[in-house]
Amino acid sequence: MPSHILQRRENESTAARIALSAATTRGAHLRTEDFGDWLAERRRTHTFRVERIPFAELDGWSFQASTGNLVHRSGRFFTVEGLHVTEDGEPYGDGPRADWYQPIIKQPEVGVLGILVKEFDGVLHFLMQAKMEPGNPNLLQLSPTVQATRSNYTKAHRGADVKYIEYFVGPGRGRIVADVLQSEHGSWFYRKSNRNMVVEAVGEVPLLDDFCWLTLGQINELLHRDHVINMDSRTVLSCLPFGDASHGALLSDTELLSWVTGERTRHSVRAERVPLDSVPGWKRGESAIEHEEGRYFRVVAVSVQAGNREVTGWTQPLFEPVGPGVTAFLTRDFDGVPHVLVHARVEGGFLDTVELGPTVQYTPENYAHLPAEERPLFLDTVLRAGPDRIRYAAVHSEEGGRFLNADSRCLVVEADAADAPLQAPPGYAWVTPAQLTSLVRHGHYLNVQARTMLACLNAAAVGNR
Amino acid sequence: MPSHILQRRENESTAARIALSAATTRGAHLRTEDFGDWLAERRRTHTFRVERIPFAELDGWSFQASTGNLVHRSGRFFTVEGLHVTEDGEPYGDGPRADWYQPIIKQPEVGVLGILVKEFDGVLHFLMQAKMEPGNPNLLQLSPTVQATRSNYTKAHRGADVKYIEYFVGPGRGRIVADVLQSEHGSWFYRKSNRNMVVEAVGEVPLLDDFCWLTLGQINELLHRDHVINMDSRTVLSCLPFGDASHGALLSDTELLSWVTGERTRHSVRAERVPLDSVPGWKRGESAIEHEEGRYFRVVAVSVQAGNREVTGWTQPLFEPVGPGVTAFLTRDFDGVPHVLVHARVEGGFLDTVELGPTVQYTPENYAHLPAEERPLFLDTVLRAGPDRIRYAAVHSEEGGRFLNADSRCLVVEADAADAPLQAPPGYAWVTPAQLTSLVRHGHYLNVQARTMLACLNAAAVGNR
Repeated sequence: MPSHILQRRENESTAARIALSAATTRGAHLRTEDFGDWLAERRRTHTFRVERIPFAELDGWSFQASTGNLVHRSGRFFTVEGLHVTEDGEPYGDGPRADWYQPIIKQPEVGVLGILVKEFDGVLHFLMQAKMEPGNPNLLQLSPTVQATRSNYTKAHRGADVKYIEYFVGPGRGRIVADVLQSEHGSWFYRKSNRNMVVEAVGEVPLLDDFCWLTLGQINELLHRDHVINMDSRTVLSCLPFGDASHGALLSDTELLSWVTGERTRHSVRAERVPLDSVPGWKRGESAIEHEEGRYFRVVAVSVQAGNREVTGWTQPLFEPVGPGVTAFLTRDFDGVPHVLVHARVEGGFLDTVELGPTVQYTPENYAHLPAEERPLFLDTVLRAGPDRIRYAAVHSEEGGRFLNADSRCLVVEADAADAPLQAPPGYAWVTPAQLTSLVRHGHYLNVQARTMLACLNAAAVGNR
Repeated sequence: MPSHILQRRENESTAARIALSAATTRGAHLRTEDFGDWLAERRRTHTFRVERIPFAELDGWSFQASTGNLVHRSGRFFTVEGLHVTEDGEPYGDGPRADWYQPIIKQPEVGVLGILVKEFDGVLHFLMQAKMEPGNPNLLQLSPTVQATRSNYTKAHRGADVKYIEYFVGPGRGRIVADVLQSEHGSWFYRKSNRNMVVEAVGEVPLLDDFCWLTLGQINELLHRDHVINMDSRTVLSCLPFGDASHGALLSDTELLSWVTGERTRHSVRAERVPLDSVPGWKRGESAIEHEEGRYFRVVAVSVQAGNREVTGWTQPLFEPVGPGVTAFLTRDFDGVPHVLVHARVEGGFLDTVELGPTVQYTPENYAHLPAEERPLFLDTVLRAGPDRIRYAAVHSEEGGRFLNADSRCLVVEADAADAPLQAPPGYAWVTPAQLTSLVRHGHYLNVQARTMLACLNAAAVGNR
């Protein structure tokens, strides 16, 4: 038997190397002050025009006669269907008893969101891609190295080759830094998850057009700008194994896991797919499926046309929220250790009932008609926070391949005992960023908005040092 | 702001106290040599008779006209429905491409399986209950302190009070040692999970009839006997936070989590509930629903009659496997550290595609008709292992409230390189028991058979010291 074949279960040096990259704001490849020019150059190379079109002008997409579901004739990509969500009251759950219908995107295939990392001058750099997505307000943002579904990268569907995919799958791939299935938007997707990967390259890596190497410190600076780091990048970055600097927390890890278990148990939720044309409260017009009172989101269609003749255009449906969102963590220091207030959220599309979201995750327009006492907890605290309380702020886009103009103002807001007491209300808990980093190694704990906010927290923490 | 309100994230003293209890084989309350008499006395107090009956004699249960599903008129308990499971081949998954129908139990309500612990003479003791379940071959076995659904313990359905439930739910409950939602049998249940809890009592605890305090060392001795520690006890025991004595492993934790993610990604599985009377390959008779070739399991009905007039009888359906099962871990030492070979299993009822099972988990009769090369991997290695290779063996029952005569021979079998190479075949991985203990803090990693085997491994490890 060979000897010394064991490894340590935890590789502490990875955390140290990530910390060094986060502390390095001068990259070996591209200076941050030159990044804007580089992205503008990429934007000139890829001119795209995205236009709203009526559903009738969608190519290959149609409403299925028997269900009203919006489907592609190939059976690929995704479908827009209906969802019926019910939440029980006593004795099966403690509610709130709820019952609603909504359109939902069903895309069962798991994709890879992967960032390749490699040391230059002894510092880890991250390979990021300037990528166009039709729903982004500025179209081109920084995506992970790879963003691909399995049928994409196994090439069975005659797609273009997926660049760098060989570093993430197959026998010759690199050293795994993180690899976890994470949920996507539970209010818009039915049980969708993607494989979030960070892989360290072994050996030389060619640098292709549209790609650039950045340190984590540079990426964190860019995370302070609006609409630069796309959602897929943010969720992958949130999965980085940051070192745990503080071992103290209000709740022990056992208590935190128990609280999550309790939240999952007390909510008894059923979600059943139904035909889209049987969804009450929503109406289908020529160019949009929308809620009768104009709330939540619309299903719309766009055409994408490329200025570059080498790339052909396409048409597709997108979900468009009715207004900008606000996504925020309230934060407080306890015994000098920063904590954030997480919210155990039920979203109809979650696989496992409840995931942890930020303190606030709302489209304020959906609640503007309500009296103050019926508005979501902590929303007004966040909306009213003065600049002296704001520790982080930037506007980010949700996944631009599925969502149109889905902008969220992402905030970290310092709270005091009057805003948010030590004893969190039911459904909320104070946790440390280190505890979030432990949870995000596993799927179905942090929703995609909480993962965006964790990436922003990590970016803000470095900025404050 | 109050100071010193933080806790350490991990409480190392709990692991030490569990180790002390495991090392203590003399209990403060009941000696192990007297345990058999105590259980026999309980058995005399509760005489039950369980008889097979035709479906027509079920009271309150009937086959729904529109679906053929077996349901209770109250809408409570559980239903027997049909399940259609498909697994894709390329490009969505790498298979095996599969497509089958089967009956399945749907019981959406989450139950509590909870063991109360308390120190006597400085040693943790576990409060176990002698409980009758109609499917157990010997009827009475040791269950956790509490085994109850939410609608049971919220008493909304006029059930008898659930003893000791106040230690597990509500504001006055004890200190949480473990609390995690775990899956049940994915081949027999549709997405069923139970809350596995270990809670330390604060203050005095009355000792009621049918209950006894045992040290973990005593329980581990009883785990070496056949049909004593019931399935619910075994799964809760597997969730105990044992200390991690060894920090080395063949795979780092990051690699292990990545392997699980990869297994979940490469299997593209859909499971849809269908009407029971539309399930091909299964036939319904007067007294059983069975597979046309006599494989897998039967759905049958029983009546339970109590000798004690204070308790009324009842009737219910049960699932009965066609033969005894074999559940086994192959084990090898690498660099002196014991590892076991886990198998990433697809079971139709899993919430999240794949969970880790033991090396072998089969009803050998289902495969007896196959030539050797088509029989499940490692099954023959386990069946042929001589006594010198067997590190643990006992026959245990699966959940006797749902399964009739569902016996599994549970084995830990020492393997060599010829049996099981260092480089595990696809779908298998070598992991340490300490890594399993880390995984089982979270749901959906270890299936119920792997959790039984982890409890047995921990029992065997103490026995060998």
